[in-house]
Amino acid sequence: MFPHEPPTTECGARGPLLHLDPATRSGVVFRLKCVQGHVGAITRMVEEEQSYCVDVLLQLRAVQGALSRVNTMVLRSHLKEYVTTAGFRGDVAHTVDELVDVLKYRA
Amino acid sequence: MFPHEPPTTECGARGPLLHLDPATRSGVVFRLKCVQGHVGAITRMVEEEQSYCVDVLLQLRAVQGALSRVNTMVLRSHLKEYVTTAGFRGDVAHTVDELVDVLKYRA
Amino acid sequence: MFPHEPPTTECGARGPLLHLDPATRSGVVFRLKCVQGHVGAITRMVEEEQSYCVDVLLQLRAVQGALSRVNTMVLRSHLKEYVTTAGFRGDVAHTVDELVDVLKYRA
Amino acid sequence: MFPHEPPTTECGARGPLLHLDPATRSGVVFRLKCVQGHVGAITRMVEEEQSYCVDVLLQLRAVQGALSRVNTMVLRSHLKEYVTTAGFRGDVAHTVDELVDVLKYRA
Repeated sequence: MFPHEPPTTECGARGPLLHLDPATRSGVVFRLKCVQGHVGAITRMVEEEQSYCVDVLLQLRAVQGALSRVNTMVLRSHLKEYVTTAGFRGDVAHTVDELVDVLKYRA
Repeated sequence: MFPHEPPTTECGARGPLLHLDPATRSGVVFRLKCVQGHVGAITRMVEEEQSYCVDVLLQLRAVQGALSRVNTMVLRSHLKEYVTTAGFRGDVAHTVDELVDVLKYRA
Repeated sequence: MFPHEPPTTECGARGPLLHLDPATRSGVVFRLKCVQGHVGAITRMVEEEQSYCVDVLLQLRAVQGALSRVNTMVLRSHLKEYVTTAGFRGDVAHTVDELVDVLKYRA
Repeated sequence: MFPHEPPTTECGARGPLLHLDPATRSGVVFRLKCVQGHVGAITRMVEEEQSYCVDVLLQLRAVQGALSRVNTMVLRSHLKEYVTTAGFRGDVAHTVDELVDVLKYRA
């Protein structure tokens, strides 16, 4: 399903759910749909002979910026709903390792 | 057309074409189509209640990595076909300014 | 004191202390001293007529990588000692806002 | 000399000189000296018990920003004086490979 499968955590199996309040969830879905349309438009730019490399690079940068904003929205929810309560659950070490790993190469 | 319209250069108007050899062009198009499918899959993950924030962050990171690789492919072509010949054309200052601007916030 | 003073949080005034265990603290100090020496060496490279731009760029990248590793060490401590216990202290919103802000433009 | 020796190019040996006009060179040297002082100040922050992790992260981010600006200054000179004239010299492929490599993980 994913052409560039990243290293996975075992958390999917461990079962914590996605903690996104409804407003964040719908905001993330909306932005991802915009990103999808934008990537389609860049694909058509590249297929045409008439477009200019620097314009393609600028559009790629805009998409990367949009994905960074989605990343920040999901990260904020994860911190608020899951990381700040790790002390209660008693899985501080695992929660921190997992988050540091996902932030390590953050664009 | 683009929801997150970036600052544009006047180059589209100035008319230099996209200098991508056929192999690079088809590689870029293929990867952008993969990215589009991948973003659709992440959208479905977020819509489902069962997925975990960290898995969403990992998938977003994978897409950002894929876009960085596309960026590098287009940049390499632009350097090879356009920047290294600016001395012949006599538009060194413009070519450099434009490229430095697009690289400034490179993810 | 700092030539490029960043936006400050009011937290310095609020008084939470640096939570770094002794091993992390001495690791961070050691790496920062290496970075300082490395930056001095790059300065001398630039002052000399004999060095090559790409070598300077490679050395700058190495220093930026070393600073990213220091950043990750401090971030890991902050998450472990302060963020995961925000639920106990009852300052989840403030802790999350502050951390998201500092991560926003993470290199 | 460098604690975190990056992969080197053979260009140092090949002998192209650093192409920095006097104003850029002195600007780069000035900024690197500021960075060096700033890193020393962060080291002292970490050595003290009284400082707060988020303030350390903000200072590290400020230094990383300053280094990015130095990077851009050197990159601009390299493009202007060396890359745009590669067509004349006939070493396009080498010049491009070398630059793409150094930009690949640009922070």
